Amino acid sequence: MTTADQRIHFGGDYNPEQWPEEVWAEDTRLMKEAGVTMVTAGIFSWARVEPRPGEYDFGWFDRVMDNLGDAGIRVCLATMTASPPPWLSRLHPEVLPETEDGRRKWPGGRQHYCPSSPVYREYATRLVERLATRYADHPALDTWHVGNEYGCHTRQCYCDVSAADFRRWLRERYGTVQALNYAWSTAFWSQRYDTFDEVLPPRLAPTFANPAQQLDYWRFGDDALRQCYLAEYEVLRRVTPGVPITTNLMPHHKPVDAFAWAEHQDVMSLDHYQDPYDPRTHLPAAYNFDLMRSAREGQPWMLLEQAPSAVNWRARNSPKKPGTMRLWSWQAVAQGADAVLYFQWRQSRGGAEKYHSAMVPHAGTGTRVFREVSDLGRELASVPDIAGTRSRANVALLTDWNSWWALELDSHPSSALDQSAINRAHHQALFDAGVACDIVPPHRVLDRYQLVVVPNLYLLSEDNAARLAAYVERGGHLVVSFFSGIVDTCDRVHLGGYPAPLRRLLGLRIEEFWPLAEGETLSVHGELNGSADLWSEAIDLEGAEAVAVFGDGELAGRPAVTRHAYGEGTAWYIGTRLDPAALRTLMDRAREAAGVAPVLHGLPEGVQATVRQGEDGRRFLFLLNHGTSDATVELPEPMRDRLRPGTGDTTAVPLPPRGVAVLQPTDHFPGALT
Amino acid sequence: MTTADQRIHFGGDYNPEQWPEEVWAEDTRLMKEAGVTMVTAGIFSWARVEPRPGEYDFGWFDRVMDNLGDAGIRVCLATMTASPPPWLSRLHPEVLPETEDGRRKWPGGRQHYCPSSPVYREYATRLVERLATRYADHPALDTWHVGNEYGCHTRQCYCDVSAADFRRWLRERYGTVQALNYAWSTAFWSQRYDTFDEVLPPRLAPTFANPAQQLDYWRFGDDALRQCYLAEYEVLRRVTPGVPITTNLMPHHKPVDAFAWAEHQDVMSLDHYQDPYDPRTHLPAAYNFDLMRSAREGQPWMLLEQAPSAVNWRARNSPKKPGTMRLWSWQAVAQGADAVLYFQWRQSRGGAEKYHSAMVPHAGTGTRVFREVSDLGRELASVPDIAGTRSRANVALLTDWNSWWALELDSHPSSALDQSAINRAHHQALFDAGVACDIVPPHRVLDRYQLVVVPNLYLLSEDNAARLAAYVERGGHLVVSFFSGIVDTCDRVHLGGYPAPLRRLLGLRIEEFWPLAEGETLSVHGELNGSADLWSEAIDLEGAEAVAVFGDGELAGRPAVTRHAYGEGTAWYIGTRLDPAALRTLMDRAREAAGVAPVLHGLPEGVQATVRQGEDGRRFLFLLNHGTSDATVELPEPMRDRLRPGTGDTTAVPLPPRGVAVLQPTDHFPGALT
Amino acid sequence: MTTADQRIHFGGDYNPEQWPEEVWAEDTRLMKEAGVTMVTAGIFSWARVEPRPGEYDFGWFDRVMDNLGDAGIRVCLATMTASPPPWLSRLHPEVLPETEDGRRKWPGGRQHYCPSSPVYREYATRLVERLATRYADHPALDTWHVGNEYGCHTRQCYCDVSAADFRRWLRERYGTVQALNYAWSTAFWSQRYDTFDEVLPPRLAPTFANPAQQLDYWRFGDDALRQCYLAEYEVLRRVTPGVPITTNLMPHHKPVDAFAWAEHQDVMSLDHYQDPYDPRTHLPAAYNFDLMRSAREGQPWMLLEQAPSAVNWRARNSPKKPGTMRLWSWQAVAQGADAVLYFQWRQSRGGAEKYHSAMVPHAGTGTRVFREVSDLGRELASVPDIAGTRSRANVALLTDWNSWWALELDSHPSSALDQSAINRAHHQALFDAGVACDIVPPHRVLDRYQLVVVPNLYLLSEDNAARLAAYVERGGHLVVSFFSGIVDTCDRVHLGGYPAPLRRLLGLRIEEFWPLAEGETLSVHGELNGSADLWSEAIDLEGAEAVAVFGDGELAGRPAVTRHAYGEGTAWYIGTRLDPAALRTLMDRAREAAGVAPVLHGLPEGVQATVRQGEDGRRFLFLLNHGTSDATVELPEPMRDRLRPGTGDTTAVPLPPRGVAVLQPTDHFPGALT
Repeated sequence: MTTADQRIHFGGDYNPEQWPEEVWAEDTRLMKEAGVTMVTAGIFSWARVEPRPGEYDFGWFDRVMDNLGDAGIRVCLATMTASPPPWLSRLHPEVLPETEDGRRKWPGGRQHYCPSSPVYREYATRLVERLATRYADHPALDTWHVGNEYGCHTRQCYCDVSAADFRRWLRERYGTVQALNYAWSTAFWSQRYDTFDEVLPPRLAPTFANPAQQLDYWRFGDDALRQCYLAEYEVLRRVTPGVPITTNLMPHHKPVDAFAWAEHQDVMSLDHYQDPYDPRTHLPAAYNFDLMRSAREGQPWMLLEQAPSAVNWRARNSPKKPGTMRLWSWQAVAQGADAVLYFQWRQSRGGAEKYHSAMVPHAGTGTRVFREVSDLGRELASVPDIAGTRSRANVALLTDWNSWWALELDSHPSSALDQSAINRAHHQALFDAGVACDIVPPHRVLDRYQLVVVPNLYLLSEDNAARLAAYVERGGHLVVSFFSGIVDTCDRVHLGGYPAPLRRLLGLRIEEFWPLAEGETLSVHGELNGSADLWSEAIDLEGAEAVAVFGDGELAGRPAVTRHAYGEGTAWYIGTRLDPAALRTLMDRAREAAGVAPVLHGLPEGVQATVRQGEDGRRFLFLLNHGTSDATVELPEPMRDRLRPGTGDTTAVPLPPRGVAVLQPTDHFPGALT
Repeated sequence: MTTADQRIHFGGDYNPEQWPEEVWAEDTRLMKEAGVTMVTAGIFSWARVEPRPGEYDFGWFDRVMDNLGDAGIRVCLATMTASPPPWLSRLHPEVLPETEDGRRKWPGGRQHYCPSSPVYREYATRLVERLATRYADHPALDTWHVGNEYGCHTRQCYCDVSAADFRRWLRERYGTVQALNYAWSTAFWSQRYDTFDEVLPPRLAPTFANPAQQLDYWRFGDDALRQCYLAEYEVLRRVTPGVPITTNLMPHHKPVDAFAWAEHQDVMSLDHYQDPYDPRTHLPAAYNFDLMRSAREGQPWMLLEQAPSAVNWRARNSPKKPGTMRLWSWQAVAQGADAVLYFQWRQSRGGAEKYHSAMVPHAGTGTRVFREVSDLGRELASVPDIAGTRSRANVALLTDWNSWWALELDSHPSSALDQSAINRAHHQALFDAGVACDIVPPHRVLDRYQLVVVPNLYLLSEDNAARLAAYVERGGHLVVSFFSGIVDTCDRVHLGGYPAPLRRLLGLRIEEFWPLAEGETLSVHGELNGSADLWSEAIDLEGAEAVAVFGDGELAGRPAVTRHAYGEGTAWYIGTRLDPAALRTLMDRAREAAGVAPVLHGLPEGVQATVRQGEDGRRFLFLLNHGTSDATVELPEPMRDRLRPGTGDTTAVPLPPRGVAVLQPTDHFPGALT
Repeated sequence: MTTADQRIHFGGDYNPEQWPEEVWAEDTRLMKEAGVTMVTAGIFSWARVEPRPGEYDFGWFDRVMDNLGDAGIRVCLATMTASPPPWLSRLHPEVLPETEDGRRKWPGGRQHYCPSSPVYREYATRLVERLATRYADHPALDTWHVGNEYGCHTRQCYCDVSAADFRRWLRERYGTVQALNYAWSTAFWSQRYDTFDEVLPPRLAPTFANPAQQLDYWRFGDDALRQCYLAEYEVLRRVTPGVPITTNLMPHHKPVDAFAWAEHQDVMSLDHYQDPYDPRTHLPAAYNFDLMRSAREGQPWMLLEQAPSAVNWRARNSPKKPGTMRLWSWQAVAQGADAVLYFQWRQSRGGAEKYHSAMVPHAGTGTRVFREVSDLGRELASVPDIAGTRSRANVALLTDWNSWWALELDSHPSSALDQSAINRAHHQALFDAGVACDIVPPHRVLDRYQLVVVPNLYLLSEDNAARLAAYVERGGHLVVSFFSGIVDTCDRVHLGGYPAPLRRLLGLRIEEFWPLAEGETLSVHGELNGSADLWSEAIDLEGAEAVAVFGDGELAGRPAVTRHAYGEGTAWYIGTRLDPAALRTLMDRAREAAGVAPVLHGLPEGVQATVRQGEDGRRFLFLLNHGTSDATVELPEPMRDRLRPGTGDTTAVPLPPRGVAVLQPTDHFPGALT
């Protein structure tokens, strides 16, 4: 996304090959009507532009580009490699991916390629070379969109091609087979490898496969996908050095390490599909939007896909209720997005996604959906100066894909641990308090944060543990939840009482984990009161104090939550899963102790408040009512609502359910920017 | 089934190869005792008559046929091709079918052949040629029974042989690959085919496979099975031109289009297994019996298999309670069957079906089951003049296998739509009202019906939509339920507001589907009141009037059910799934508006009443009590109960639970035959 | 286990290859501290001792053996063949097992070998030859431990190697293909084999595979595993004729016929893992401990693996609450074990079982687990004279793996029958009454028992039926439950009214099975009252009397439980599944009629009492409180508690929850030994 123009980009995926050319002129006319400024084109055009191996037909696509360019619409141009044409796997069946238990995945859908396939990468980069060369100087070209939703359907492949690539990857990672044997603890169950040639992916086995082998396969799988991306990236960077490059990530997406990918993107972009049946669907959205904003340290990002209304791929697919599409679009902007795009422009007549809503529905433009889309397009165009502003948070939630992969392996004390859910629970406790939060990897510099929250960081290197200790020692405030700091990067237990590398910092020792049965709950008492489930553990205090204790069960009277003064700072520890209210209480206390204030005090239930600020000091206060009741937000100073241009300054903003306000504070407004 | 003799045939599957020859004489003796007039023989005899490829041993089967012939028992002779001998797949492993995800299905059960296999068809027809030639003039031969339960276990095969056959089938259907690309909407997701050689079955894919590819695979699968049937049919028709040919269909059987198969059968036959645990098991039976009767426009059909008592293949298998076997057998006759047969004559000692009940149980003939069977044999023999009579209905339920296949594809607004369930719900509303109903395909002439009910006819060609409109225009009454008329025969959406080809007829436009969450219900109010679930939609009236509106939810106050005067007739539309009582109310209103009367007025709850009539005007009124209470049925004129020969004419028929009466009305009786 | 020393062996699995050699010295020091007398070593050492095919490295293992020997710790030496090294399947991919549907199981876990593989067996026995030769005279060698948990993960293999071995096995079993065809009832569904070459394992089929084929595959699978065991056994017996040989069985383990294996073991050994979440987990333990004791007719057995606290392989894994590990260890001794061992000595840092508890936990020796382990070690050492004593039971529960395999095949009247559950229900009725019980196969001499209980003995040969009749005729008391005596050894129904071979003995005939729907219950009335579920049947009395009748349903008033005086004895029959209390009442009556007394009268709820006795007459009375309340056990004479050495004789033993007492009665104490 080029930042030449100051505006919130608005538009959607554009697949003109699904329609006769006579429709295209109407497309651009309606796009202008709807306020479209950018489209993503060409995502699934490979089979049309290369109908036979090596034979290219770009003529029709030239006309698409020219048509868009003539209408002044910017193009986020896809590299067209997301879904290979049928001829590719017919010529080279070995490009097809295989499941863990040896079943081949065939064409008929999309993403039917083995990420490690040199054949796929060769054909893909050859196409990208042609494409980049052809459109390098096209005036409509704005941004490159590489592939599409990497790892969405083919998270990992287990075929022989992947096996060979895995061995190469392991050789590079470990150097010697001795190092591999150590890292994988192969003395266990007689798994010692004599040479790298013996190593295989963790395919279907008689019982639990080696956990370090599984963990490395997650790492390898992420890397194999990234290598596909980078192979195209390198062509694009070389041919069009000035054009920004992105690829659209998926939310909560375990196979793709957003932090690692962020290092190779010029701008982050996200596909996000709220579930209209879920009254709390804005919460996972908030988590993912914060992740996108944080992944490149606050840089504005693109909401590259959302649905105008219903999707097609859940078991039951509700339309979005009136106003929610607007609300959730503004939520993205409020959390740092500078682009709001949809899948897709015009609803397909045929194919697997014909019941996915589009900006132009089957029923045409005289429809609720087209009206709401067009209204939003106009509204976004009215506040172009939001673009380029950034947010700041004083709290960070720290997480790590490596730890996620390791946490959810089999053969654990409890198989019910869910990294995504536990992260979101902690994030929600901040969100509900109106506190801005970054989401950061363990290697990020922490000193700019007053509070760092670490949910279930199961895998933790000694180095990263030391960094956490140093952060607290220098005055930082830290909240760590259970089953953190348990294994090293090879999934080997840190010995000496859990969590060995954090024991001094937290001032405690855990002798035994005591996971709870399904449905079992315990009460907790002390500075906070409530219930706990899923997990408990036998904590011995070694300097920490008990903030709350278990009220019943085998561990009654023993600590459930602790606090430890360490250096200039404080480290809190949560040895169970608290109910949401108790977790909120705990997080409020930790936050208050750290001196972190919410964006606004006294926010009504269900109202989200965020601030963005430009380098020139301009500020925007976003207020969004996700609740079901009318609310009024009291402001500390009079402000003007940019979305209601006629109205004057006010200190009380009425917000009906699904209501949105974009206020412009003065320099005196503290917000989260103090 | 030859119609030379006027009688209701009675008997069962006969598998003498499971028993030593000394048992065979006892078999015919007991058959006579039980009133058996027909057996189906040879279904699983292939391995015995052709123990090695090309070596035949028919001697023992000659003795079986002679034994039966000598006893005066007619033979419905199977072509023996339902379960190939082990040597076939050992010689030709490629005849074995494969699952969608590439797993081979091995011998050990039955039906282990790829329907597209030329090898299987060659061996099968070679056997049929021998068989037909040998028994062409055997006096016991009555009817040919081709294969067995086509598609029961192997609905579709995905092997390479099937793939090649699918390509042949597609070439014949589409002619050019351009036509295929259009029909399959392959511009979507880069699926464009350059040649037919690239096309594959919809095997396991990374995500949703192309829906039109899936739809065509249902069509192809049905056709592949039918080609197996027809290959044998052609041999039989040539060698024994005068002998009727049938194959036994399964109830609710999605892989086999009963309407298409009916065109190639001389008589319809059905296997039907009620579930004794289900107190409403007579309702799906009623649906399937009506389908059999309607498939060849009222021609008598054969109940070729039912269980004397328990089956073996459900998770738990209850015996039939005393009297229910009789009741359900008479239900078949009441709905047009001229033959009542069982699986099987003598209960197997070994093998997979040894716990399937039989006419002669393990415990022998001094048993409840043998007594009930023999009693029924005698009873059926006492009313031979029922045979050959037919029923007439003034209401038709219109359905289409093509639409069924398309309706239940993935990626829809709701995956909870179930063609079979929705059809049966509408059928039940007529059944409970005592109204006779035919079940017909879209191309059937409709003008003979006063009311046509169309549940969820998702796929609808412009032509068939026009036929519905013409029917109403000429004075017909029509009830259409939601998500009808949405796609064309290629599963491409009819554009212009749903349901485009029916909008003028129905007088409305649907802008958005609004499927309901699992467990979500809405109230409906108006001319009918009740609740709705599963589905709602945003209906704009364009000439129709609202019969009922939604009482809550986002669509509160908008139409749920509508009515539209069109030409000389009326078209009703149901935009949700009504609860059974509300649906019954609606159907009663539509039926009354159409002037359709029930067979009898004032039928007690749970009592079924049907009429059959001969060309000579003889009539039979069947009364069956499916309920759990004693009932008395008031007749409009005195009639005699043919099953209680001693009693005189009466106008009040007492029916205990599971009771049956067969009454003979005079010419004055209107019944459903006005 | 050599019986030279009189002591209860104590220890665990020892896997020193997981640790640097410097840890080994600490290991033996801590073992002495914990009272360890025996370890099981080498189970997963193959890849370390044979790093490349044919290259052996025993040096490190010599040091392990010497280290243990020097510390006076006996070694139960594993043959190291449980988990082949990666090189084996790389060299010989055909050793990998395949699932029923053709999916290969790969290395990465353990037990990744086809049991029929000649390649695996050759490499395994070559290793065993080396191992046995090397350590034959090592002073630490005590017992051979062959393989490990045979059939735990690879119950059966369906690959081509297995298929060939199955054909060999069938040729040996049946001699001719005609005999096979008869045994498998292949006249059904056209399955007749012309040669053995056509036969395959019961792989994935279009529908239910031939049940006799499935039954024989269970037999073959058990035999294939046993052949692996015996191949190693023969080497060991030859090279070290004086060293006892065992292999550790799994509880409730359907693939491995404990009675058949017992004939080839010098001592039985068991791995048993109670589920701490389950408050009744001691009941399946009691069943399995009785099975181990009975399998070699009362000979002391080894608890070869249990967990010191939590396991890792359930979905959620609770630690053992304080005291339960001790209680459940003593339960094993009370039921005849002479060894109590754990998996494992030192908790792994890496690998799939790192969260399985160990005697030395991650957190070290200053832990609850190490304390409880050491306490138990000392306690067991204080009563060495228990070793070698035996128990006697006057009641036998008769069961048969062949019948189990057949009972749970598909296509039955009810698929909800569960041999293990029904056996344990009957066992519990005796356990709760404080009655000792042996578990025996049908061929065991029964005359020493006063009561024989036969739960669901579905498959029963005429010979074994005759043995049961003879037992009763001579005065025995017998309880038989429903669906017994139905099929012969080929799974062919015994004709002539169920259960034909037991009808004279039981004095009844069953005409029809009447399985109940899920959730359906019936009342029963008579000498016992209660409820029944799962099953009912139509019983005609032919000499027996009704003990209880069904109170409702289609069979109301007909017998549910019967009793038949036969010869000098009595045969009871239960035609349904009684609720636990009703079953207990029935079993109490049958037991009292048979004159069987409990170990102690008036035992408090939840307290288990057993007796062991030596050849010299020394006796031990074990009392264990599995309940949650304090209990006091009244003794018929004063006795001394060997676990509380300071206390004098008493006639009232207080037992808190989880309490254990080991009392020493005089010769006058009757116990179960009268």
